[in-house]
Amino acid sequence: MLYVVGIGPGNEDYFTKEAENALNSTDLIVCYTGYKKYVERFDKEIYVSGMTKELERVEYALNEAENKDVALVSNGDATIYGLASLAYELNEKNLHNVTIKVLSGLTSASVCSSILGAPLNHDFAVVSLSNLLTPLETILKRINCAVESDMVLAIYNPLGKKRKEPFLKTVEIISNYSKDRNIDYIVGIVKNAGRNDSEYKITTINNLVNNLDEFMQYIDMSTTLVIGNSNTKIIDGMMITPRGYMSKYE
Amino acid sequence: MLYVVGIGPGNEDYFTKEAENALNSTDLIVCYTGYKKYVERFDKEIYVSGMTKELERVEYALNEAENKDVALVSNGDATIYGLASLAYELNEKNLHNVTIKVLSGLTSASVCSSILGAPLNHDFAVVSLSNLLTPLETILKRINCAVESDMVLAIYNPLGKKRKEPFLKTVEIISNYSKDRNIDYIVGIVKNAGRNDSEYKITTINNLVNNLDEFMQYIDMSTTLVIGNSNTKIIDGMMITPRGYMSKYE
Repeated sequence: MLYVVGIGPGNEDYFTKEAENALNSTDLIVCYTGYKKYVERFDKEIYVSGMTKELERVEYALNEAENKDVALVSNGDATIYGLASLAYELNEKNLHNVTIKVLSGLTSASVCSSILGAPLNHDFAVVSLSNLLTPLETILKRINCAVESDMVLAIYNPLGKKRKEPFLKTVEIISNYSKDRNIDYIVGIVKNAGRNDSEYKITTINNLVNNLDEFMQYIDMSTTLVIGNSNTKIIDGMMITPRGYMSKYE
Repeated sequence: MLYVVGIGPGNEDYFTKEAENALNSTDLIVCYTGYKKYVERFDKEIYVSGMTKELERVEYALNEAENKDVALVSNGDATIYGLASLAYELNEKNLHNVTIKVLSGLTSASVCSSILGAPLNHDFAVVSLSNLLTPLETILKRINCAVESDMVLAIYNPLGKKRKEPFLKTVEIISNYSKDRNIDYIVGIVKNAGRNDSEYKITTINNLVNNLDEFMQYIDMSTTLVIGNSNTKIIDGMMITPRGYMSKYE
């Protein structure tokens, strides 16, 4: 049996009871090297491997799961940019015939929304700027469509040390809508969401463009950005997207 | 102090440790009548009110929170179509000066993704079809943009007993893209996601259109729909959106 377990940001506070129970009762935990620290407390055998070793890691987990209970750990939600789909794909391709059960976890968009206030309190899109597995053209079309239709937008993996183009083009798209519509979109920036060193800034797209170098120093691969819709506002220093109750009922 | 607490679908399994601790240590729980059953186990004073009483309920919670710890409970994630933004709005408007802390919970899209397999394993949009607080035109534009840009699409509140137009127009939009692109989009349908009576079906947009009456009998306000992107496929009966690892690395 293979449990693909989303653990949220990693801190114990964000584990669901279901994930906690699965890791307590498994024979083996398989995870990315960087997340080992989040699962050591379960005192189980742990197999780790590094970035870009996803295929190898999932294949190892499936092999082991043929005759024991294995927990394949994903950061956030196991199905949202996580390893769940790859587990299903390799299980079929390599004829493991393993039963797979996926356990949901808190994805970064959800954690960041709570940290920033409530920016995701209306229709939203989640887009990753990593163009390692997705063509940049597809990514930018999604960014464009999200802003065009006034959805709130959560952006994962915004900026790598050698990967600046997707970020710069995304900022350009949002900035162009901002000028056309005369709306200075509110931008929430959360680093290491839900971890011990979690921090955030709330700014606007104009301010980001005017201080681009400074923000590009700050934003990294462990940052999530949240771009507000046309109704998003600041209340008491927090980023809030109204659901519409007050304008409807008052 | 006001904690706005997302409890996920309601079952204990999906509570985060953080939510569990907040409800264990609060003086008063405030929630929608229908969710009382999910918080009775904490053995606290509970104040409930019904649908459309959101303003009254949040105002009550804020009043009480001026001199005790109150947990305002939201189904799913408190910031995703939840009461968090309304709490910030009323706190400011009515000068409560209450400190608000939002605790993330599992939103339905995340829970449904795990139930269906891993359909949300790439960029996605979340759109509610409830046009009580949002103009139908805005909703349909978002549906259109999501499918146009090939995002996976999670749809909340798809069909009410007296509210069929948003659903019918959404099906028409997806069906038109399906014909234009010759892609029979996979559709996941989850009822009462993560609850004891949780059930799901996996079908396609063509099959849904060809059996519309039957599906409209089945789908209700407690249903979440997930529409795949052009790469979503069925593996072992589950709905899977590849992240792209296999085409990239093999």
